[in-house]
Amino acid sequence: MQQVIDLRSDTVTKPTGAMWQAMHKAPVGDDVFGEDPGLNKLEERVAALFGMEAGVFVPSGTMGNQIGLKVLTQPADEVVIDENAHIFNSEGAAGGLISGIQLRPLPGTRGILNAEQVASAIRSKNDWDPRTTVIALENTANMGGGTCYPVETIREIYKLARSNDLALHMDGARIWNAAVACGLDLKEYGRYCDTLSVCFSKGLGAPVGSMILGSSKLMKHARRYRKLLGGGMRQAGMLAAAADHALDEHIDRLADDHRRARLLAEALAESPFFSVNPDHVETNILLFRVRNGDTDHALNWFSQHGIAMIPFGPGIIRATFHLHISDKELDKTINTARNYTGS
Amino acid sequence: MQQVIDLRSDTVTKPTGAMWQAMHKAPVGDDVFGEDPGLNKLEERVAALFGMEAGVFVPSGTMGNQIGLKVLTQPADEVVIDENAHIFNSEGAAGGLISGIQLRPLPGTRGILNAEQVASAIRSKNDWDPRTTVIALENTANMGGGTCYPVETIREIYKLARSNDLALHMDGARIWNAAVACGLDLKEYGRYCDTLSVCFSKGLGAPVGSMILGSSKLMKHARRYRKLLGGGMRQAGMLAAAADHALDEHIDRLADDHRRARLLAEALAESPFFSVNPDHVETNILLFRVRNGDTDHALNWFSQHGIAMIPFGPGIIRATFHLHISDKELDKTINTARNYTGS
Amino acid sequence: MQQVIDLRSDTVTKPTGAMWQAMHKAPVGDDVFGEDPGLNKLEERVAALFGMEAGVFVPSGTMGNQIGLKVLTQPADEVVIDENAHIFNSEGAAGGLISGIQLRPLPGTRGILNAEQVASAIRSKNDWDPRTTVIALENTANMGGGTCYPVETIREIYKLARSNDLALHMDGARIWNAAVACGLDLKEYGRYCDTLSVCFSKGLGAPVGSMILGSSKLMKHARRYRKLLGGGMRQAGMLAAAADHALDEHIDRLADDHRRARLLAEALAESPFFSVNPDHVETNILLFRVRNGDTDHALNWFSQHGIAMIPFGPGIIRATFHLHISDKELDKTINTARNYTGS
Amino acid sequence: MQQVIDLRSDTVTKPTGAMWQAMHKAPVGDDVFGEDPGLNKLEERVAALFGMEAGVFVPSGTMGNQIGLKVLTQPADEVVIDENAHIFNSEGAAGGLISGIQLRPLPGTRGILNAEQVASAIRSKNDWDPRTTVIALENTANMGGGTCYPVETIREIYKLARSNDLALHMDGARIWNAAVACGLDLKEYGRYCDTLSVCFSKGLGAPVGSMILGSSKLMKHARRYRKLLGGGMRQAGMLAAAADHALDEHIDRLADDHRRARLLAEALAESPFFSVNPDHVETNILLFRVRNGDTDHALNWFSQHGIAMIPFGPGIIRATFHLHISDKELDKTINTARNYTGS
Repeated sequence: MQQVIDLRSDTVTKPTGAMWQAMHKAPVGDDVFGEDPGLNKLEERVAALFGMEAGVFVPSGTMGNQIGLKVLTQPADEVVIDENAHIFNSEGAAGGLISGIQLRPLPGTRGILNAEQVASAIRSKNDWDPRTTVIALENTANMGGGTCYPVETIREIYKLARSNDLALHMDGARIWNAAVACGLDLKEYGRYCDTLSVCFSKGLGAPVGSMILGSSKLMKHARRYRKLLGGGMRQAGMLAAAADHALDEHIDRLADDHRRARLLAEALAESPFFSVNPDHVETNILLFRVRNGDTDHALNWFSQHGIAMIPFGPGIIRATFHLHISDKELDKTINTARNYTGS
Repeated sequence: MQQVIDLRSDTVTKPTGAMWQAMHKAPVGDDVFGEDPGLNKLEERVAALFGMEAGVFVPSGTMGNQIGLKVLTQPADEVVIDENAHIFNSEGAAGGLISGIQLRPLPGTRGILNAEQVASAIRSKNDWDPRTTVIALENTANMGGGTCYPVETIREIYKLARSNDLALHMDGARIWNAAVACGLDLKEYGRYCDTLSVCFSKGLGAPVGSMILGSSKLMKHARRYRKLLGGGMRQAGMLAAAADHALDEHIDRLADDHRRARLLAEALAESPFFSVNPDHVETNILLFRVRNGDTDHALNWFSQHGIAMIPFGPGIIRATFHLHISDKELDKTINTARNYTGS
Repeated sequence: MQQVIDLRSDTVTKPTGAMWQAMHKAPVGDDVFGEDPGLNKLEERVAALFGMEAGVFVPSGTMGNQIGLKVLTQPADEVVIDENAHIFNSEGAAGGLISGIQLRPLPGTRGILNAEQVASAIRSKNDWDPRTTVIALENTANMGGGTCYPVETIREIYKLARSNDLALHMDGARIWNAAVACGLDLKEYGRYCDTLSVCFSKGLGAPVGSMILGSSKLMKHARRYRKLLGGGMRQAGMLAAAADHALDEHIDRLADDHRRARLLAEALAESPFFSVNPDHVETNILLFRVRNGDTDHALNWFSQHGIAMIPFGPGIIRATFHLHISDKELDKTINTARNYTGS
Repeated sequence: MQQVIDLRSDTVTKPTGAMWQAMHKAPVGDDVFGEDPGLNKLEERVAALFGMEAGVFVPSGTMGNQIGLKVLTQPADEVVIDENAHIFNSEGAAGGLISGIQLRPLPGTRGILNAEQVASAIRSKNDWDPRTTVIALENTANMGGGTCYPVETIREIYKLARSNDLALHMDGARIWNAAVACGLDLKEYGRYCDTLSVCFSKGLGAPVGSMILGSSKLMKHARRYRKLLGGGMRQAGMLAAAADHALDEHIDRLADDHRRARLLAEALAESPFFSVNPDHVETNILLFRVRNGDTDHALNWFSQHGIAMIPFGPGIIRATFHLHISDKELDKTINTARNYTGS
């Protein structure tokens, strides 16, 4: 039986054999009693990677983001965010439910905001004005096409935040990709963020788990909110072991995912039926346009050849590269794209 | 002592002598026991004016809007709204606090949305999608410059709402102005709205009070939420009497406010220092631009001549006409504008 | 037509002629612009009466309490309270809606808690424990029968609060009655409370209005929350004038209400059909038991004689004395009670 | 090195070798895409066990309970509950944060409510009354000492609920223990509950995971709320496999835990230093009293002999039996208790 080349998302990865070994060997304890040694170590390790004080392991990226916003806001605060952000579009309006906050979406450039537009969105402080308190950046920006925040932009927004007494949250579900693509130390991100969420189950390939990072004080609150939201897991040590293994083995290899995404983009750019600027493919996510808008037909063509992608807005398809996609799968995908004859 | 010509807002009006008479004569009872006869009658009267089933008197337009949204939504629902709406900008993000909802602001044309852009904002129904449940329109749109929703636009948005199982809330704080400007029966608005908030203390000149209108079922919930939010007032009959008097005496005269706003616009349009399209002045609110952007200097000029206006965004000034502004005050304002020599 | 002797509540009072005079003479301005001089003065006056820094005028006692709790808590905090408290029973669970808090009701003695039982309710600080942050006292305790907190009890609870880093909120809707009954300066209450709500429309006889008091910092937040909840009223000066007048004229006379309540209690205690301990009648509220439990029959008897009271739990009736009840009405009520022959 | 006999909680269990085998063999997919076959099967299996329509796998018992309450309530609803319930005491007041609800704790008998006291707590429906909408029962009642709801009591409360239009939620974290102790089919619980949460990581010994059960319609909402709260896990199939294995192998053996708890109770009852009624030990949880109140000394004694228990209120200690405690560990514990000579 032929295996599907699954480019729908980097969340579809499954544990490798070596990862299973690591999980099986993991000591486990009751994390609600704070007795899971692997989990405690993982939290310390990841915090150290980003130069931040503390981290809290959570079951999902959504919980990481939502706890990050919760510890930084009061109900009726306003959070400035790109209109394509995962937090605005793909977390079910949880910010209203959990934190009672208002999001203020701005039109960024492929998911990336600049300091000037953020500045223009900061509210006055009359009784009737929403209180601007947080700027939330997504890095890489998924719906922007895996785009990276330039470190200068982060720095400018950080300065703006400090001078206006605002906090900065980074949705770093794919921060590993950003760091590899930009050649930056992870600490470069940590130094500008009040809270930063990272994910182990996307490009890194662990089965379950994310982490929210910040100061020890904020993370003390975060740990409590994790319990309230139902994210306190008992013997989560095996999940920590998988994440730990992924940090050891699966970061450097992200460069291969990026290279493959760009190669596919270059192939698509040569096709009369597709349209994409390969320079916009910065990491493992590739958004391309079907020129005649018929994404169903194109998706079907790929599907018939054993390649799964997903529609991503009118006329747009997303392909995502990850752990299970080698050059062989890339080549087959490129060939399939070249053979496409339109609808 | 010279009286200031206060064009800052139509909320600055004070009860007239006749209104005071009406208030003093009002019977009062304990409205929490449902025993305020004047209040009950006012609620029935206003509901009938709009052809709606029931109304609930509330202390402010903000409470009217917030209760309207509350009875139509669940936490984590999403409300489609113009980016200049009062609910998005001037109610302190209360929708997050009270209802746990997410607002989805769209860029309308001078505060007015069309059906097509609303349609494009309706979400899919995956678990991670916010649930689109309400479309909120502001009529007239204050920050849009007192603009009116054409009845055809309302009808199209209404059809869209029905076919997508969405509710329609109208922030009708200045619906009286819209009806007078468009020559429409108030019932034309009521028939398309699930909830509609109206205000007695703006153009109508009552001292305090708004009302939220809707079906009997929704208003039963609204009455409960009014109590929870602290809007249950004991002997509110005198406020009802003021509103009742305003409905009798102060609706038709709004046409004068509109005429005066337009005359001032025409005068400003002739000045080399100001810029405004008089055709955009549909009701009692006039937004004009100071060509060199120096609103402080222009506001100061008017202020020195006893005329108060307010800044309304970069380079823009708002002047609002109301009960206390007669042709005499208009003439003085026009003359002052004509004499302006720039900064 | 005979006037009903309305002992249902002290909320049924209507403005006196002198109060109307005061209201009519009141200057009014737009309080949302902070321009209502009478309101500003009233806020300063009441704050000064209690020796507190600031006050915010609100439309109802419920809003005063709910804003008090809101400024003192975070969502998921716990508030220790008597199980008969208005906040727990008669504000529609607004604390959940507005503040996301949990109430922890304790069984007090006729509505009065002591320091020891409060102490036993303070939680540990594990991640899964609710966070105890506020102690809420009601003084006088309405459902306790208008009972007063002894100043020593308040002081002990205050000390407990301070040593556990808890805040103290007092629901002082009838604090005027407590002060008169206990012969205490209002400042004796203010010094122990972080927030204190007072009401002008109960025993004091103003038509509408309450106030929340506290530090300048907390009241800055309170003013913002008032706006969000929809309690920002435009020309509320006339309501302030009524409250101001009530403070001048209607505090000392509360002693008469208390005397009359006690006299009725003594009469009822002599009846074979009723049961009440007159020593438990500390202020203007009188709870008495119908010995055979048939409150309907007894209420009907009083009603047939033009006297309105309300049922207040199984077998219990509440009678409340206020501005409109003179010795003449008292005498008639006593005689009617004496003539009752049971069901 | 000697192994500690850990009687602190049944949450401390670790996966057995056979459970690991099951986990390793589990197919995994992306559950956010609904593609985890093991998880889907587990949800169907557990729903069928209880005769309910559907189930949603969640990371913790807290999330199961909180989602159960969320789908049954509106903000400002009131939930009747025993004052010792986990939901009231050990979920951090999450009901306020997530659902905006008010809990109404009642004093049950060792954690068990009866229909009469529930009936007396149902509120009237005035605007100011909290809305009673849910009755929440915990079965077994942890803080009550692992007590079971008699099926007749459940049935009476169910009837009461139905005739008052209330819903019934059961916190069945240890429902497996109740069913085994009472000899009841799990369907006996399912038929009376609108929502029922169960836990795989307590007595059943799975590492992570709980489930919320109910109608297909409610569970559709539950699945969405799980996503919003951050409980959507990607490759959760291995956790499902562990739970599946536990259902196969670890239910019947709970009878042994119950027998052991009772045997320890009988031994303690004979000691002059401890006090416990063995008849109150219905399942795997044993609460006993240290006669002189010095729990620290007694806990220390056990600890020195390699036995861990936890304090559980003034003068009370809890011991909990589970998978890792055999008769050998029981015997040692009994001997240690017998040798205690007081403080």
